[in-house]
Amino acid sequence: MKVHVPKKTLADTLAHVERIIPNRSSNPGLSLLRLELEPDGIVLSGSNMDIDIRARFTADVQGSGTYALPGHVFSQVIRSLPGDMVEFDFDDRELQISSDTFATRLQLSEPATSPELVFPDSFNGMLPADALARALESVRYAAAVADYQAVFRGVKLELGEDRTRVVATDGFRLAYYDLGVPSGLAGDIIVPARSVEELARMLDDGEARLHLGDGQLTVANGAIVVNLKLMEGAFPDYERVIPKNFPVSVTFPAKELAETVSRVAVMADKTANNRVDMFIKDGTMQVTAEGGYGRSQEALQVLQEGTDPEIALAYNARYLTDALASVKGDVRLQFSGASSSPSVVVDLNDSSYLAMVVPLRTG
Amino acid sequence: MKVHVPKKTLADTLAHVERIIPNRSSNPGLSLLRLELEPDGIVLSGSNMDIDIRARFTADVQGSGTYALPGHVFSQVIRSLPGDMVEFDFDDRELQISSDTFATRLQLSEPATSPELVFPDSFNGMLPADALARALESVRYAAAVADYQAVFRGVKLELGEDRTRVVATDGFRLAYYDLGVPSGLAGDIIVPARSVEELARMLDDGEARLHLGDGQLTVANGAIVVNLKLMEGAFPDYERVIPKNFPVSVTFPAKELAETVSRVAVMADKTANNRVDMFIKDGTMQVTAEGGYGRSQEALQVLQEGTDPEIALAYNARYLTDALASVKGDVRLQFSGASSSPSVVVDLNDSSYLAMVVPLRTG
Repeated sequence: MKVHVPKKTLADTLAHVERIIPNRSSNPGLSLLRLELEPDGIVLSGSNMDIDIRARFTADVQGSGTYALPGHVFSQVIRSLPGDMVEFDFDDRELQISSDTFATRLQLSEPATSPELVFPDSFNGMLPADALARALESVRYAAAVADYQAVFRGVKLELGEDRTRVVATDGFRLAYYDLGVPSGLAGDIIVPARSVEELARMLDDGEARLHLGDGQLTVANGAIVVNLKLMEGAFPDYERVIPKNFPVSVTFPAKELAETVSRVAVMADKTANNRVDMFIKDGTMQVTAEGGYGRSQEALQVLQEGTDPEIALAYNARYLTDALASVKGDVRLQFSGASSSPSVVVDLNDSSYLAMVVPLRTG
Repeated sequence: MKVHVPKKTLADTLAHVERIIPNRSSNPGLSLLRLELEPDGIVLSGSNMDIDIRARFTADVQGSGTYALPGHVFSQVIRSLPGDMVEFDFDDRELQISSDTFATRLQLSEPATSPELVFPDSFNGMLPADALARALESVRYAAAVADYQAVFRGVKLELGEDRTRVVATDGFRLAYYDLGVPSGLAGDIIVPARSVEELARMLDDGEARLHLGDGQLTVANGAIVVNLKLMEGAFPDYERVIPKNFPVSVTFPAKELAETVSRVAVMADKTANNRVDMFIKDGTMQVTAEGGYGRSQEALQVLQEGTDPEIALAYNARYLTDALASVKGDVRLQFSGASSSPSVVVDLNDSSYLAMVVPLRTG
């Protein structure tokens, strides 16, 4: 069984698969990459239990067969090859990899010891891949990292009849992003935040074809197909807690506020929620922070609107900068009044995005 | 006491001082930066016990005084300032830092609690700063990192009458670099490898002025002065073990061999010294490695010279790639014969550099 393939094609595809395959695992089979020879191409697949990945690329193949190889060692060898073309020569026990002056004989494992993965044959949903990636990347930060209820460590996809929404929340902050288009699928699902990150990295352009199966969402984009295991549990009824009335709101460039908050927060007490205070009056927003080393403050001129003449609130600095990070131009920060009532961040150039931050309880 | 200074001047100088000052220390005084106001400039100083640093820059200063401040917090504040100019306003307890719309009041510490450092007034030695940096960077890798006799974790400076040599060895490999010029000082000293790294980073161009004091070397370059604590102990008599006769030697581009060794070593057994084998005969160098995953090999065409027709040796792959890293063009690898006798790496474009690697015992 001989194969000839350009190194770049192979290395680019392998880079995606390698990210999924565990380097070490208590289940040694998981660290194996499955490689199948087809008449005019190669199919690579692997899994980390949460994500199954399958990638196909065109190659000059003589023969057929299914093989299992150590995923990370194989990737390291391919990345470091000296030539532009790679030759594979398989026998039952070894894969010989040759490129230019270099050759490796890599031990093969029994194919049956590698995960045998099942991917759907047909897809009945579709979203634009770049828009889906942007949506997922915009909200992922709001999911919890650990020590929270499981559903808070996931991103919810609301697959509706006329829109698709992705939402993440850890209970103290929330972000959603609306794709103005339906996916063709129907239902609400929760994908682990870690899987969302990997998916967003893989999505390129063109169509992201979708299939909703039993406990998993399958996404196909270009040469790559992934099965994402879904999370069980009830996602919180977040719409109920998004305030509708805002006695004060201010507008200004998102980047400017993010920099001010970061700068002022150098003095914030890291052991006390990294607290920064905001006081808004007469079109000026004062941002202050105080801790063991001293006190910082900065005044920003903002466009102030609303019925109340002033407002004073405190936030975890990191929650504010996270919420502002995906906003390119101007942002509107909307305050719902009472000190424990959430504030809302609106991207003035992209109404698809909304973020909510719960202020810190003070005094 | 008011000061006006461009942010860039301050931030650039502070970056060097900040690298030395410990962020946390069992001695809280060490985390303090000392700031002295002079008639037309500011002097910053700090220490990590192994290195004392002092940096001066010109500033518009009204008044005089000595202050102590938390080094890392001060640096973070300065780096994040919004404007191009910074204003300092000192009183006895606080430093007010203002820039554009931003202001901080930073608590000052009692100056007596910060390290009071002594730097020499005069220098009687000199080396070109860029050449000294290159010399130190070329040999630093050969010093031991831990678990070795103390002197192996240092870099020796041989301050001779007609040349200056820097040398590092961990007993299994060695590198030296000769500066063809004398320093004006005389003696052999050992500087901790960590201090050597910091010194190399700070050296810019122009003169590196030197002063050899009691247990310390002082180096001044541009606006920066550092005291480097010296190590005690006897450095090994390394010249004795550098072989003089080489029955086989080969010449080729250093980068090519480094890449071949890295590539082949993917298969090497990391628990068995990361071993790669070399076999040289008829102008061909075969590099091979074998481990649990399989076997790699690559053949390089080399210019072979010497009295013996062939040679077979094994090395720790990392020791070879480290020794080759600072060589830009062609390198000559010289083999002294017996399998445990050191091999020598010579940079054909820069005779100042020599490296030695002890092969692995085999068979």
